[in-house]
Parts: sequence; C-alpha cells; structure tokens
Amino acid sequence: MTPTRPGPSALTPLTEDELRRIDAYWRAANYLTVGQIYLLDNPLLREPLAPEHVKPRLLGHWGTGPGLNLIYAHLNRLIVDRDLSAIFVTGPGHGGPALVANTWLEGTYSELYHSVGRDETGMARLFRQFSFPGGVPSHVAPEVPGSIHEGGELGYALSHAYGAAFDNPDLLVACVIGDGEAETGPLAGSWLSNVFLNPARDGAVLPILHLNGYKIANPTVLDRIPAEELLELMRGYGYQPYVVEGDDPAKVHQSLAATLDRMVDEIAAIQRRARSGGPVERPRWPMLILRTPKGWTGPKNADGKPVEGTFRAHQVPIDEVRSNPEHLAELERWLRSYRPEELFDATGGPVAELAALPPRGDRRMSANPVANGGRLLRDLELPDFRDYAVDVQHPGEPIAGAAGVLGPWIRDVISRNPQTFRLFGPDEVASNRLGAVFEVTDRAFVGDTVPGDDHLSPDGRVMEVLSEHLCQGWLEGYLLTGRHGIFTSYEAFIHIVDSMVNQHAKWLKVTRLIPWREPVASLNYLLSSHVWRQDHNGFSHQDPGFIDHVMNKKAEVVRVYLPPDANTLLSTMDHCLRSRHYINVVVAGKQPAPNWLTMDEAIQHCRRGLGIWDWASSDDGSEPDVVLACAGDVPALETLAAADLLRQHLPELKVRVVNVVDLMRLQPPSEHPHGLPDNEFDTIFTRDKPIIFAYHGYPWLIHRLTYRRTNHVNLHVRGYKEEGTTTTPFDMVMLNDLDRFHLVVDVIDRVPGLAPRAAHLRQEMVDARQSCRDYTRLHGEDDPRVAEWRWVRETEPGLRSGR
Amino acid sequence: MTPTRPGPSALTPLTEDELRRIDAYWRAANYLTVGQIYLLDNPLLREPLAPEHVKPRLLGHWGTGPGLNLIYAHLNRLIVDRDLSAIFVTGPGHGGPALVANTWLEGTYSELYHSVGRDETGMARLFRQFSFPGGVPSHVAPEVPGSIHEGGELGYALSHAYGAAFDNPDLLVACVIGDGEAETGPLAGSWLSNVFLNPARDGAVLPILHLNGYKIANPTVLDRIPAEELLELMRGYGYQPYVVEGDDPAKVHQSLAATLDRMVDEIAAIQRRARSGGPVERPRWPMLILRTPKGWTGPKNADGKPVEGTFRAHQVPIDEVRSNPEHLAELERWLRSYRPEELFDATGGPVAELAALPPRGDRRMSANPVANGGRLLRDLELPDFRDYAVDVQHPGEPIAGAAGVLGPWIRDVISRNPQTFRLFGPDEVASNRLGAVFEVTDRAFVGDTVPGDDHLSPDGRVMEVLSEHLCQGWLEGYLLTGRHGIFTSYEAFIHIVDSMVNQHAKWLKVTRLIPWREPVASLNYLLSSHVWRQDHNGFSHQDPGFIDHVMNKKAEVVRVYLPPDANTLLSTMDHCLRSRHYINVVVAGKQPAPNWLTMDEAIQHCRRGLGIWDWASSDDGSEPDVVLACAGDVPALETLAAADLLRQHLPELKVRVVNVVDLMRLQPPSEHPHGLPDNEFDTIFTRDKPIIFAYHGYPWLIHRLTYRRTNHVNLHVRGYKEEGTTTTPFDMVMLNDLDRFHLVVDVIDRVPGLAPRAAHLRQEMVDARQSCRDYTRLHGEDDPRVAEWRWVRETEPGLRSGR
Repeated sequence: MTPTRPGPSALTPLTEDELRRIDAYWRAANYLTVGQIYLLDNPLLREPLAPEHVKPRLLGHWGTGPGLNLIYAHLNRLIVDRDLSAIFVTGPGHGGPALVANTWLEGTYSELYHSVGRDETGMARLFRQFSFPGGVPSHVAPEVPGSIHEGGELGYALSHAYGAAFDNPDLLVACVIGDGEAETGPLAGSWLSNVFLNPARDGAVLPILHLNGYKIANPTVLDRIPAEELLELMRGYGYQPYVVEGDDPAKVHQSLAATLDRMVDEIAAIQRRARSGGPVERPRWPMLILRTPKGWTGPKNADGKPVEGTFRAHQVPIDEVRSNPEHLAELERWLRSYRPEELFDATGGPVAELAALPPRGDRRMSANPVANGGRLLRDLELPDFRDYAVDVQHPGEPIAGAAGVLGPWIRDVISRNPQTFRLFGPDEVASNRLGAVFEVTDRAFVGDTVPGDDHLSPDGRVMEVLSEHLCQGWLEGYLLTGRHGIFTSYEAFIHIVDSMVNQHAKWLKVTRLIPWREPVASLNYLLSSHVWRQDHNGFSHQDPGFIDHVMNKKAEVVRVYLPPDANTLLSTMDHCLRSRHYINVVVAGKQPAPNWLTMDEAIQHCRRGLGIWDWASSDDGSEPDVVLACAGDVPALETLAAADLLRQHLPELKVRVVNVVDLMRLQPPSEHPHGLPDNEFDTIFTRDKPIIFAYHGYPWLIHRLTYRRTNHVNLHVRGYKEEGTTTTPFDMVMLNDLDRFHLVVDVIDRVPGLAPRAAHLRQEMVDARQSCRDYTRLHGEDDPRVAEWRWVRETEPGLRSGR
Repeated sequence: MTPTRPGPSALTPLTEDELRRIDAYWRAANYLTVGQIYLLDNPLLREPLAPEHVKPRLLGHWGTGPGLNLIYAHLNRLIVDRDLSAIFVTGPGHGGPALVANTWLEGTYSELYHSVGRDETGMARLFRQFSFPGGVPSHVAPEVPGSIHEGGELGYALSHAYGAAFDNPDLLVACVIGDGEAETGPLAGSWLSNVFLNPARDGAVLPILHLNGYKIANPTVLDRIPAEELLELMRGYGYQPYVVEGDDPAKVHQSLAATLDRMVDEIAAIQRRARSGGPVERPRWPMLILRTPKGWTGPKNADGKPVEGTFRAHQVPIDEVRSNPEHLAELERWLRSYRPEELFDATGGPVAELAALPPRGDRRMSANPVANGGRLLRDLELPDFRDYAVDVQHPGEPIAGAAGVLGPWIRDVISRNPQTFRLFGPDEVASNRLGAVFEVTDRAFVGDTVPGDDHLSPDGRVMEVLSEHLCQGWLEGYLLTGRHGIFTSYEAFIHIVDSMVNQHAKWLKVTRLIPWREPVASLNYLLSSHVWRQDHNGFSHQDPGFIDHVMNKKAEVVRVYLPPDANTLLSTMDHCLRSRHYINVVVAGKQPAPNWLTMDEAIQHCRRGLGIWDWASSDDGSEPDVVLACAGDVPALETLAAADLLRQHLPELKVRVVNVVDLMRLQPPSEHPHGLPDNEFDTIFTRDKPIIFAYHGYPWLIHRLTYRRTNHVNLHVRGYKEEGTTTTPFDMVMLNDLDRFHLVVDVIDRVPGLAPRAAHLRQEMVDARQSCRDYTRLHGEDDPRVAEWRWVRETEPGLRSGR
C-alpha cells in the first residue's frame, strides 16, 4: 500500500491487459523456478508427470523464488516504460533458479549459453543442469548473467549495490535484501551508506526488503517486530519506507506497480533537484518493504503441515517425489497451476506476448554491461611513479615513511581519474599517511557538516567510514562494475573482512573460466599500519595473519607484496593498479624509516620479486657461509643491521643478504605462476648453507611456501609469534626474536663451526638484548626508528662497500 | 533531557552537596586520565611542571575519557543508591586510562596491583606505566579490573553486554558504545539482541550511545544525521531512547542523574512485570544517547586550532610538551584546572569524601565477580557420553551422522545445566542435525510468535540468529562471565568471525598471565556443515581455512579436533566441555556416514590424539611399505577405501593406516603441548617410508605442522585445493584429488619400485576416476555417501582382518 496521496489511477496503474500479462510472466518465471528444482525431463508437462521425470536428488531453494520473480517482472516493466538502466542485486543468493529463469525468459541466458536455447530442448537442459553435477550452482553465482553478487554468504547485498551506484549517475541498482540477511551485522551496517551517496554524481539504490518471514528454521527478526517499529527503523536509517503486502496476486501486482512508479518518480525528482546546480543535500531516498508469503504460489500443505508462508517452504517443499505417488501428484498439480500451456508455445519458448515483455538488448538487467564490469573497464591514467621517488643517495638515506611517499602519487591518480578511481578506508587515510590526497579531493560525505570539518564534501573521492565491511563491500561493487580502487586499512583489522575476501576470491576464480565475463580491476589492499608498529595500540592491533588467509586462495588470483621501502612501494602499487582480476595485498610501513633502493634499483628489484642485495652482502658473489633473507620493511632493517654487526665483528664470514618483495616467488613454479624456478632458487639461497629468514608475519608461512625447495632443511625463520604489547618498536622485534642481535645469534648457532670462535660475540649479543630491554623499561624511546637507523648508518661505509 | 513528565525534583535530583561531590569525583578521574597520558613524574603537581616531568613519547587517547568518567561516576551513584550489581562494558576501548583511573579511585586497582597503591608513589607509577614499555596497554585490556571487553577492535561491545546479561537476572550491564563503533556492521546488528533477552530470566543491558561526534579524522555518521532520525532509529531497534546533552557540567550532572534514575526505574518496572508470572513479552528497554563534547574539559584550542569538541581531541591534544614551553604551560593549566589539591590528600590518595563515594567491595564494577567469570565458573554436570554411543559391531557399521548422534547428548547437557549452558548458532542447529535439543528446550525468542512457529519461546536455551557476529559476541560475553557454551556453524562462514576469534584468543593468552583472572570455560566450535558436504550449496560454502586461521594463535590457547566418526565426536566434545581457557575447533560431519570405532576404542583413540588403525592396516605390526594417514571424516573414508583397494589388488603391499583426531599432535612438543615426541612420531609414521596423508583442509597446513619431523621429506598431502562446485560428494573429493582412486595412484607412484608391477592397477584407478565422473555427470547420485560406503563394506572381511 502506498501510504498517502495516491490518485485512483495511481493506485491501480495496470490495465487489465497489463495485469494479465505481467501475471503470466510471473507465472512463467515461477514455473521455470520449480522446474529447475524438480524436473529431469518432460519440461513442458506434455505428458503426465512420471517418477522418472523427477530428479533423483532434490536440491534447491524455492521459498525466496516467487518474490524475486515478482520484483524482477515489475522492474522490467519500469525499465521498458522509462528506458531505465538498471541492475538487480539478489541478496537472497539461494534464489539462483529464479534469476536463471528470468534471464532465460529474457533471452540473455541462451545468448550466452548456446546449448540452453529458448525452446523445449533448452528448457529441459535448463532444468536438468540446476544443482546437478556438471551443471550450475544453486546460487546467483557468477554464471548467472547480470549478477554482481552471489549471496552464498549473506550480508553484503546492499554494500555491493551502493558500490555499483557510485559514479554511475544514470544507473538504478535494485537491491533485494532477504529478511534473513537483514539480521547480519554487515547488512545492518550498510543502510547508512546513503550518507555517502551523492545524488548529483552517483546513481540510485533502491533497497527492497523482502519480508517473507522465515529463514531455514526460524522466523526472521524484522518480521516479528511491530510493523511500526520497522518503519521507524527504516526512517531512522534515513529512508522513506513504502510497504507493499498481500497474498492476492492481482492486488499485489497493482500495489507493487503503483508503489514502484511512485518510488522511481521520487528518485527522479531527487536527482533532478540535486543536479540542478544547488548545494547537494542528503535526500530521503525511498525504499520498499515487500511482505509476501514465503514460497508463495507453492503447495499450501505437505504431509499435513502448512508449507506456503512458513519456513517449510525455504528449500524443497515436497520431497520423496519419486517414491511417493501422492507427492508426485501434488508436484504435478503445483506445476500445472501455472498453466504452462498458456505460457510456452509449441517450440517450448515463451509465447510471443511474454517474449515481448522484457526490455531489449543491453537494457535487460541480465545484459546490462554494468553487471559485467570488465566490458566497461578502462585502464587508469597513471602518473609516472618514478617522478615521486625518494632520492636515495646511498642505502639508508633519506629517512621517509613509505606510505607518506606514496600519498602524492595516489593524489595524482585521483586527479587524473576523476570518475573511475576511489580510495577506501575505515577512518584511517590520514592516519595511514596518505593525507596528500586531500590536496585534491575530500572525503565523500552527504551528512550534515559544520565549520571546522576537515575535507568533507559530497564530491569527495575518499570513502571513509568506520566499517571495514562497508569499505570492502563498496569497493567490490565498484570493481565489479568496471572501476578501480584501493582499500587502505590496519593490518590486524583487515581480518574483519576475511570471509568477504574468500567470496571475492571465489568470484574471481570462477569468472576466469566464464568466457563472457571480462576481467575486472584487481582488489588492492594497502596495509600500512602493520603488526610491528602498533606502539601504543598494543597486542589487540597486532596480527599479520591476513597474508596467510589470502595465501589459501587459488594461486591464480592472489598476490602478496612486502616492499621494504618507499621506492619499492611506488613500483609495487603502480604494478597493482595496472593488474587485472587479482587480489593484491601490499604491506608497507607508514612510520619514518630508512630507504634502501634508488628508483631504478627498486624497479629492477620488484620486477625480479626477490634478489640478492650485493651492497649489503659480504660474499662478493661467491658461495656465502650464510644467507640472511628478509621480507617486510622492519625485518629488512633488522637483517641489514645484523649483516652490519656480522661484518664488524666477524669480517671473514661471507654473508649474503636476500630481500623478498613478492612472496609468491618463494613457491615452486608448479604452485604459483610467480614461482622462482628451482635452479634459480638454489643459486640464490644455496643448496646447503644456513638461511636465516626474517619475515614480517607468522614464520610458518615461509616454511609452507618453501618446503619443496632443496635447501629447506637449512631454513630457519623468525617472524611474529603472537608476542606483543604496548611497547617500543624495537622491543616488539625483541619480544618476537626478530631483532638484529637475535639474528646474529642465529647465524652463530647455525653456521657450522662458528659457535666456538664466536662465543664472545654471541654473549655480547645476548647482553645487548638484555640492556636494550632494560633501557626500554627505564626510558621508553623518543624516536626509536630513527635511533635504530643511526645504528646502521654509523657503519655506512661497510654497507656501501658493494657499490 | 528527560522527555516528559518529570517532576521538579526528578529533574534535579542531586543536592548541591551531591553535585559538588560527584563533580569532584569526575574531576579526579579526568585528572588521573590526563596524568596517565602525560606525566612521568610530579604526579600531584606539587611543584611547577617541568619538561622532565612529561613523558618523552606521548601516546594515548584523551577524547573519549571525560565521557567515560562521567558515566562511570554516575553509575557508581546508582549502584550505591540502589545496591545494584552492575558491570561496565567500554565500547571505546581506547578509553583505557579512564577506566584505569576509576578502578584506582575505587581501590580495586591497588588491591590487585600492590605496587600501584592509592598514594603518591602509586599515582606516579600509575601514570608512568600507561602506554609505557613494561607497563599497561592503552586499551581497556584484560589487565583492567572489571573489564570483559577490550575494545581494541570495534564492534562487539553490545553483543558482549547481552552475552553477560543472559541468565544473570540481577545484573545490570552498562554498555558504552562509541559513535565510531556504532558505524560498524557488527554493532549495528547487535541492537536487536533485545529480541532474544528474556526480562524474567536474564539481566538488563543499558546501552549508552556516547555521541561525542568524531572519530580519528572524521565526524561520526550518527552525529550527523538529524537528531529526530537517530531517535527513530533507536525506537526502530525497539528501545526507548533518552537524550542527555550539554557542555555545562553542572547541568549535565543533574540531567544525567535524573535520566539514569528514570531509566533504572523503568528497567526495574519491566523486570517486575516480567517476573510476576504472566506471559513474557518484549519490553521497550530504555537506552541513553549522551551527547557531550569530545575531549570535554580539555584544552579548547592548540596551536590556534580548536581541539575540545573536535576530532583533534581524539588522541593527545597537546604535543611536543617537552620542547615547547607554551605547550608545557598549557598542559599545566589544563591539569591544574581540575584542582588536584582539592581531590587528593597529603598521601596522594583521594580525599576521604571522594574515597567514600564509590560502592564497596564486590559492588564496585571493577570488582564485580561477574567480570572475572572464572571466579564464578562451575563445572558442567555432564551426562556420561558413553551412554550415547553408536553401537559399532565392526568398522563401518552402522551408518549414522556424527552430529545427529551428538544431538541427544547436548540435549541432556542442556537439561542438566538449565542456567549455565547455551547453544549458539546462525539458524543452523536443526540443519546441523542437533535437533534433539528441541525435545527439552526451545529457541530463545521474545519477538512476536504465531501459531505454527517451531520451538520458539522466551525461555529457550538455543540462541539462533542469522548473524555469526552476534552468536560469537553473545557467547564470548557468556563465557567471560563464567558460563559455558557451544557455537555450531557452517565451516565456511565461521570465517565471518575470524577477527573476533583473534581478539578472544588474545584475551585468553593475556589472561593466562594475570594471576587474579581465573580461567574461563573454553570457546567451543562445532563445525558440522563442512567443506566436503556442501552438495547443493556449492563453491561459496566450501572453505576449510578456519583451522589455519586458528592455528596461527598461541599454541597454549588453541585446539583443533577432527573426529572421524560419531563415537570419537562424543568423546571429543565431552573433553572440550570440560576444558578451560581454550578455543576448541571441532569439525565433524552431519551427513549419514559409516562409523569405525567402538566407544572404548574411540576413547582410547581420542586420548592418544592419533594412532594406527590396525584393523585397517596390512602391515601386521611390522615396518610398512607405505603409511596412509588421514584426518577428518571424509578423508578417513577415502583412506580406508584406498587401503581396501590396495589390499584387494596388491595384497603383498604392507599398508599402515593412521588416523589423526587431534591435529596438534602432529607438531613437535616444542611447538605445542600436545605435540607427539619425535621418537613416537617416527615409530608411527616411519623414518623413511612414503606417507600419503589425506587431510580435511588445505594441504599445506600438514606440511607446516610436520616440517621438522624426520620423515617430512616423504610426506605427500592431499586436501582441499579450492576446487568445488555444486556436485556430488564423491565428485568433490575427485575434484580435489582426495578420492580413493587418486590415493591408490599416489601410493603406486611413491612406493619405490611399485610402479612397474602395478601399472595395470594404476590405469584401472585412472579409468575408475573417469567413469565415476562420467557417471556423475550423467546421473547425479541418489545417496552417494551410502553408495560409497557399500563399496568398502563389500570388502568387510578384509577390513576386519586386524581384529
């Protein structure tokens, strides 16, 4: 029911003929939905339904289907009437068969999957393939045309919808949110995305909360709070809620058509106002609450228990159809209740009247190129990152935080790509030292502002909200619709989106194999507040495990980079923004730190992914006594300092320093396309010398990556072992045995024959650790990073010996 | 301001004297908060502030402090007035110094940390230790008395608060939610926890949304939506919102006191009604919106920029105090504005009047035993799990799903522990085959119910909501306040709470070392919808990586079990519910599956954690030619089938079958307390024979756990390699090369000299894989698990040969 002011014709906008046709279309979609769940053969019911026509194993979700079909049909009407560009985000992801049904009715499905034509054979295949080995998944998977959202894991529909709408001013994103999904935290936190949507610049999101009342076994919370409370909730989120409810199809059709007309009028009015040139304000966007029975038009009862309108309609409402003749008869009655003979012609395709209903060509939601973002993707115009280099005169100078050096480059990426690139972060862009971006843009914000606010405007290109879920969901939606972005976050808290990363990685993996899906831009993480520099945040902010999490994904879609300084970070990020269809994880520091490589060296080093740093080594190109390897900025510093200590105290020891930027290079080529060939690996890491590897994260990852390598048995890894608290940076590395002194001790303990002659040095190192700890406990540190660097710099000539 | 109907005395309930005292207490807490952030010495400002009195490195968060101190002081008044039992959940976790200040004022801090007395020396130590090496973290960390919630990672305050309130009818949980945290998804999804709180049986939660307007660099969303919208939002969540706002301390004190009085009256009335014996309905609980300036009472400006009431007050408002005399003077003015000479006596402790204000003994929020749950923890009364055993006559029979067998035992755990145990899950308890629990209890639900609802009642012990975040947060709150529980979920989607698990693991690790923190019950995960059986859910539901995630945590707090059948699952869960202070992850199937071990065998096997299955082996106790190891129910089935194929076709080959229940046994004892000694490991896995290891999850985890073992070089692991779709269970194992045929091929390829004489068998296996795939593509499967089992059972005599 529309709440107020509708004229008589506005209340029943459909002519009788339109009503009949839209209902027929809905019945056709419902029929095709049921057919997919149940039928192996006899798709048009041209003969009586027999047990062998039914799938032996019944899988799928019926309950949400009729509602999705209803919404889809009515959106199609709007699109045709108003020539809209729209896409459909299906929160209830188990509604796969409904979306497949609609895309088949629209013709898109058959255009993309030639063997599944819009005819009887095609329909039989359509039915059979669903949830069948070798067939199609039961969700709105990437295989479904028009999908940018699978919905297997619930919670992200609305953030994906907003991400798609950003910078797409002419787009309408219809987003169906199941009332189950609405219980999740990420979804609950997505409603207020409207504070970040600029009605002048961005498109519109039309949230449709589908209250069908039940989950698998429970009622839904939003269906069981008072109706008035739900309206308050939606108004509290800033929306103007409309309600359509009922179980009489004719009435619901009229009411839904009238309400959607009104809502889309309102959206158009909002956009007109915002685009008329005045100041942009946050409008009250319309949203729809659609309350219809779960499994509507399905069986009312089964085995004496109510089904339609209950949780029993969630999956397969009638089971054991092959073996139970009553169930078989009930299924046949159900299927025939849609009157398929009126809906499909002799060939098995939709009758002409139905085929004429959907939009044409790219206006079909299933064919809208926005939902196949790779088709629209254009390369970014990237400023030459070499122009932003730190001028490294010799290794270690100058002191500059890597993230701070990167900032101006990102600033210029934003300037040059004013409509296709955004930076996302949970209130941490400035804290992560990327503040240079605010020289050219603001934080997007359409809420109230007051004097003194810092770089807030509706036109901002920086998306800051204290929700990693929203940042991730928005960015995914933005990328999947053909744009680019970076997500910058604290390393520890990026775990908040672990499961979203899983789902995105799965999407990328699957879409690589779908010929009509074009590659999209990579999802780039820049984690510059990392485990080793949480000086006052302490233990709760220390976790480098996101790398491990990502490394479990398919090798073909993930990349992990640990640039040791500013120039390598610049080179790495440039590479990431050019790449396609990956998840790139970049971990780099934001604190003042020494820089090691000139830009030319950095480019070469990044191209190789790992390499020997001759200037820090003392093996003069010959076989070393020990390899000091490192990955990450803090481990690199400690390793260089250890190498320096060894050079001072054990000048005859041949030490090779190796730095790893691209972690995937450690794996064998059989495991990852970046994998270094075994012979090259052996050349660098030797076949039998001890390797002391200082690693940024949990040490066992390095073992996992290298366990097949020749010299793995001599590999000894130091890394984060879950020790930490509020303390100084140098104390942090000591707590985890990653410090320079400990690395020297490791060398002494592991180079054969060295221990006896280096006993004195070993004790010195142990004492140094203790006095550092004592000093720390007594004094804290002023600017410890610089203090530490001085320690290395004082031995500069030694460090520079290789050049 | 209270909204309506307050009498004149209700509006200003504090006498002038009370007002003076509560304000003095607040000033004292604020002074102590600033002192912690800044002062190294001269704690009472008995001499002019000099640079050397100030910490060289200034760390900490001021902005949220004054608000927390205000709320704490006023709650103390309520507690004393009404003899309440209350605890304080600090959502703004960075408010550590504020909470430390209050617990020191109350005396609890000094009782627990003797060296930090309530005197001048103690105060100096209190100040110095904050965010200082060897000192205390800046958050409301476990070290802070009265805390059950650190708040380093934001989003979980309210779910923790509700978890604490469950089954604590006399408890008031005051929960401060920062307006930053309120933007997170998990927090947004927590408000509706009130649909699951039974006012008759559970305690009360008093949410206090502290709108201080800013995050690190941005305004907060909830502060920048219209005030009326925020009220609608809170009403939409089912609360009765009250607003207190202002920046005049005297007025705010009166208003806050009046409003809290009224709210607590309302809570009492709600509880009286609910406990009078009538039907329990969902009340409209009160909640408070407190709008005060960020960094209130702090410096108004610094360096010409406004500070108080802006984001610049978030952390350290005045910096460079040692080097900038103006800043030093400003800090001194600020500190002296609290008039410390009136607040602290000659000894440095609070003056008598202030010391008299807080509650006494365990009524202090910092001393309430509820917030040190281990003190209240009682063992569960556990039914003898052996009584629930599956009667295994010989390996493989009967067919029974492990979770379904466990259900009745959990049912009886619930019956026998009606107030101290709950089962949590995201709408999946029945789907995970634990439906037996509904014979004795219901799902907790205080929303509207309708006829036909399935086991919903306010008294239910099963907590089902479609939010893993809520389940986890509730359970953590429940455990940390001294109770027990199990969280059952899909394996793939438990990643949703990865970061919450991190934080809980950190809490457990740290609290092991805090003498006054008693151990709490373990957090138990039962993941019975696992990666191998997502037949129709497909790829999006397939992810076994939670195990890897958990294994990154400290060895002393995590345990992972993979029981291969029902009896081992019973034994494992009994063990988990008896354990303390761990995170136990148990992965076991819910689908019909063969059972292998009698209960006695299961107990012995679980006690060992891993062992040789003689009855399935053909090495007759001698050195085998090959070891077939397995972990997980599906890998065990495939391994046994492979062993059976080998026995049939290569009867002379000596095969040893090893099953691993407790994954930690694979690690060396130096890495984990459960680690098997090397000599025992070598005895079981041999020193030099090939090991084909069929593992439930990502294969590299097994390498990571065993890379130090003698025979690691001969270890070959099969597991999930991110291949999956909607297909049959057997096809799933084939897609990942974990199937019996592939295991046989692995044996042939890896046992030295075997390949030539087994070439025919190898080809047969390759062909069998192909024909299985062809068959699957053609027919799907009816009940493939049983069909597969038959394959093994037909060779039963062979399998039983060892007995």
